[in-house]
Amino acid sequence: MSDMAGFYYPRTATGQSSLLPAPPWHYSGDMLTVEYRTDPARVAELLPRPLVPAPQDPAAVALIWADWQSCGDSGEELLDPVRAQYSECLAVVRCGYGGRVYSRCVYIWVDSDVALARGLIQGYPKKLGSIHQTRPHPFGRAAPRIAPGGIFAGTLAAGGRRLAQAVVTLHEEAPAPGFVNAHPLVASGSSASVEGGPAWRGDATLELFESPTEELAALEVREIIGGYYRQVAVSWDGGTVLAQHPPS
Amino acid sequence: MSDMAGFYYPRTATGQSSLLPAPPWHYSGDMLTVEYRTDPARVAELLPRPLVPAPQDPAAVALIWADWQSCGDSGEELLDPVRAQYSECLAVVRCGYGGRVYSRCVYIWVDSDVALARGLIQGYPKKLGSIHQTRPHPFGRAAPRIAPGGIFAGTLAAGGRRLAQAVVTLHEEAPAPGFVNAHPLVASGSSASVEGGPAWRGDATLELFESPTEELAALEVREIIGGYYRQVAVSWDGGTVLAQHPPS
Amino acid sequence: MSDMAGFYYPRTATGQSSLLPAPPWHYSGDMLTVEYRTDPARVAELLPRPLVPAPQDPAAVALIWADWQSCGDSGEELLDPVRAQYSECLAVVRCGYGGRVYSRCVYIWVDSDVALARGLIQGYPKKLGSIHQTRPHPFGRAAPRIAPGGIFAGTLAAGGRRLAQAVVTLHEEAPAPGFVNAHPLVASGSSASVEGGPAWRGDATLELFESPTEELAALEVREIIGGYYRQVAVSWDGGTVLAQHPPS
Amino acid sequence: MSDMAGFYYPRTATGQSSLLPAPPWHYSGDMLTVEYRTDPARVAELLPRPLVPAPQDPAAVALIWADWQSCGDSGEELLDPVRAQYSECLAVVRCGYGGRVYSRCVYIWVDSDVALARGLIQGYPKKLGSIHQTRPHPFGRAAPRIAPGGIFAGTLAAGGRRLAQAVVTLHEEAPAPGFVNAHPLVASGSSASVEGGPAWRGDATLELFESPTEELAALEVREIIGGYYRQVAVSWDGGTVLAQHPPS
Repeated sequence: MSDMAGFYYPRTATGQSSLLPAPPWHYSGDMLTVEYRTDPARVAELLPRPLVPAPQDPAAVALIWADWQSCGDSGEELLDPVRAQYSECLAVVRCGYGGRVYSRCVYIWVDSDVALARGLIQGYPKKLGSIHQTRPHPFGRAAPRIAPGGIFAGTLAAGGRRLAQAVVTLHEEAPAPGFVNAHPLVASGSSASVEGGPAWRGDATLELFESPTEELAALEVREIIGGYYRQVAVSWDGGTVLAQHPPS
Repeated sequence: MSDMAGFYYPRTATGQSSLLPAPPWHYSGDMLTVEYRTDPARVAELLPRPLVPAPQDPAAVALIWADWQSCGDSGEELLDPVRAQYSECLAVVRCGYGGRVYSRCVYIWVDSDVALARGLIQGYPKKLGSIHQTRPHPFGRAAPRIAPGGIFAGTLAAGGRRLAQAVVTLHEEAPAPGFVNAHPLVASGSSASVEGGPAWRGDATLELFESPTEELAALEVREIIGGYYRQVAVSWDGGTVLAQHPPS
Repeated sequence: MSDMAGFYYPRTATGQSSLLPAPPWHYSGDMLTVEYRTDPARVAELLPRPLVPAPQDPAAVALIWADWQSCGDSGEELLDPVRAQYSECLAVVRCGYGGRVYSRCVYIWVDSDVALARGLIQGYPKKLGSIHQTRPHPFGRAAPRIAPGGIFAGTLAAGGRRLAQAVVTLHEEAPAPGFVNAHPLVASGSSASVEGGPAWRGDATLELFESPTEELAALEVREIIGGYYRQVAVSWDGGTVLAQHPPS
Repeated sequence: MSDMAGFYYPRTATGQSSLLPAPPWHYSGDMLTVEYRTDPARVAELLPRPLVPAPQDPAAVALIWADWQSCGDSGEELLDPVRAQYSECLAVVRCGYGGRVYSRCVYIWVDSDVALARGLIQGYPKKLGSIHQTRPHPFGRAAPRIAPGGIFAGTLAAGGRRLAQAVVTLHEEAPAPGFVNAHPLVASGSSASVEGGPAWRGDATLELFESPTEELAALEVREIIGGYYRQVAVSWDGGTVLAQHPPS
């Protein structure tokens, strides 16, 4: 009967109800990363054929917290921030395919339906979770600075169970916020950094906890590589991720 | 590298992380329905080609609240009820296709990721919402009975905005809990009642509210047909809905 | 300037904003109880002077889940059920004072501000938590019946950490839903059963988990006494609890 | 039996369970303020005797959003940020008493039990709400800068109903973030600014919405005075608020 409009469901005559606006999608946020090594067999078994383990450091994992605002090109979500704000936590590994090295997101939790639906489009295996990340602030004792000695924590829960908690103490600027999430994603095409502040590197602790519905803890922490913090902005045009971290 | 297991993502070697168990999926819950007539043009414009308006009563809409527990065949979700319990609110219209009349869910909100993901498989346009429904209880003044004079309310909010609220006062048993949601679903195949108590019919009030991201209120209430209440159980085997209301 | 109205804050000229209506408060709900014995020293150290350990079975603890609807005398909350529904989980011990035995709530979590504020009036040490409890339903495989073989679970989380989980399998009707919560409360005056279905008794399992902000797990499970289930209704007139379990 | 420890309930032998740490309490956060004039009779009727309307501009109201991290002196909450982060929205008016002008918080909503309990100690009439506020970020299109042209929004909901929404467009630095909340609080003693960035002033819009359980909308918007934004840090030592805005 009708010409349906809307980038995503529910499609209507006007498109106003669409859960997602049409790309491009813009993101501004802070990323807290802990990189570590686990049993390489645990990484390998998460790689569907024809992916293979990365030829070097195949046991490396990045657990990444990100605290985002995002919006479509109109930016209207920023005027109703419950629509713009969400947090996510994702586990990324590396793999090989066709002679190249790729990053691959094996687990991810978010706290909004907009982020969940975008992930389905982008190939992320998103679940809902409760994700918290210490925020920097320029004043006072109830927030760290993004500076040497700044301490940032991330926590993840789902179904009323704590799944992960990390603490990173910043030491110095670094050329990159780690290496595990620095490759193109298998699912999403190429990626390139668009905008962002300096990466910071430091010490990290990370604890993972068992849950009957999750296997994150199977990626046990054998050796911490480092912790990282970076403020970034990303724009995604619908097929090509234009930044180091393709948010979701 | 690996044989991946799991009915749904994230797929792993064991399948333990899958957001959804394999069907069959079982549901036990209470449904509160308000049927009413709106502008038939508003219904028609929600029907994608080749669907056409129902030949009779093309302005009829059912707004349905459901308060569910659901589980896979193992029933393990019932031992961790945060995994089993969810609520939903859905708007259903009728349409014609190939000479038959079908029910069609045009809007739906749920409050869990399991329900959201199941809806994607089943063709429901699910968003997250905050859904509440008065519960019956056999004792005391803080709950109605499912009996003449019992008063049940349903409310729906999303993004911190109230979208709908209804109140139904039960009068008598009825042969069915309305007619709008009684047809096969276009998306999901045939449906048949499996188990349930008697349907109850009564008076109803319904208010719909505007939101910048929703169009439920465009299905304005012109005439209330009736209110209904029914306790039901449904099993869904992965393709054929085996009950009057295919939950999601 | 003004005559302020309202049973509770915020007080205004009309009283419409009051977080709580004036008593009486009515409750209808289901209670799931696990009784067990812990180290009696852990109970004793939770009793402020001049309370003393109960002379008999001083190690007994009841962990109780309750799934409530509540309202004031007008019952208007039942027409907007987000205002009426809440869950709670509380740990109760016994103590002696003046030659009598009392029940005492040492920890309690709820999931609404109305319940939190009522608890402050009634002397309950309430925090917010995430509380879930399997619901009975007359139909289908996604809910137990209140009958022999019915299996009910309760879970408690706060701050994204699981604190407790219990499973009770019903065996038979029993004269009472346990004995730990059967005494008058030190804080709230006398109590008397008003209305309710039969108590059911059965087997139980209970696990408690550590948290940096909680000490529930210090009441370690040494011996399970039993599990109980009961549907009850309570009215509280503002000073005298008129039922076996004074809800909050 | 026992010496009980803990600044707040539940009191235990160790004090570990206390919902609140002992003061001092530290806060770092961002405040978004809209000042406007309403019917002065609506302000006057919210002032309990012996408070009187402020002699000048007695119709002025400030609606303030604040996005906080807070912690006790140990700062441990910052390592588990679900314990540190909360948002609040409060309505402040001015009043006279004993020849001086005071600020008075007439309505306030928060989203954590820690903040709710602190408010009870400090004399704030806190309820739970859903509060969102646009966050500034140095990079990208999904966040404003704290600079001319930066647009910040605040929203408030409770019980699944939108109660207020505001949009502020920054123009210039200003000597103060408004005047309504600049006086000592009647409830909490003196206040003095401790630390913070420059105040910013700009245009504002504000909409208030009816709710059956709230009267914020009775403070109808007759004339916008201005919008303000400021990053601040506060420490509160348990009796004297050491900053312009005493958080809660």
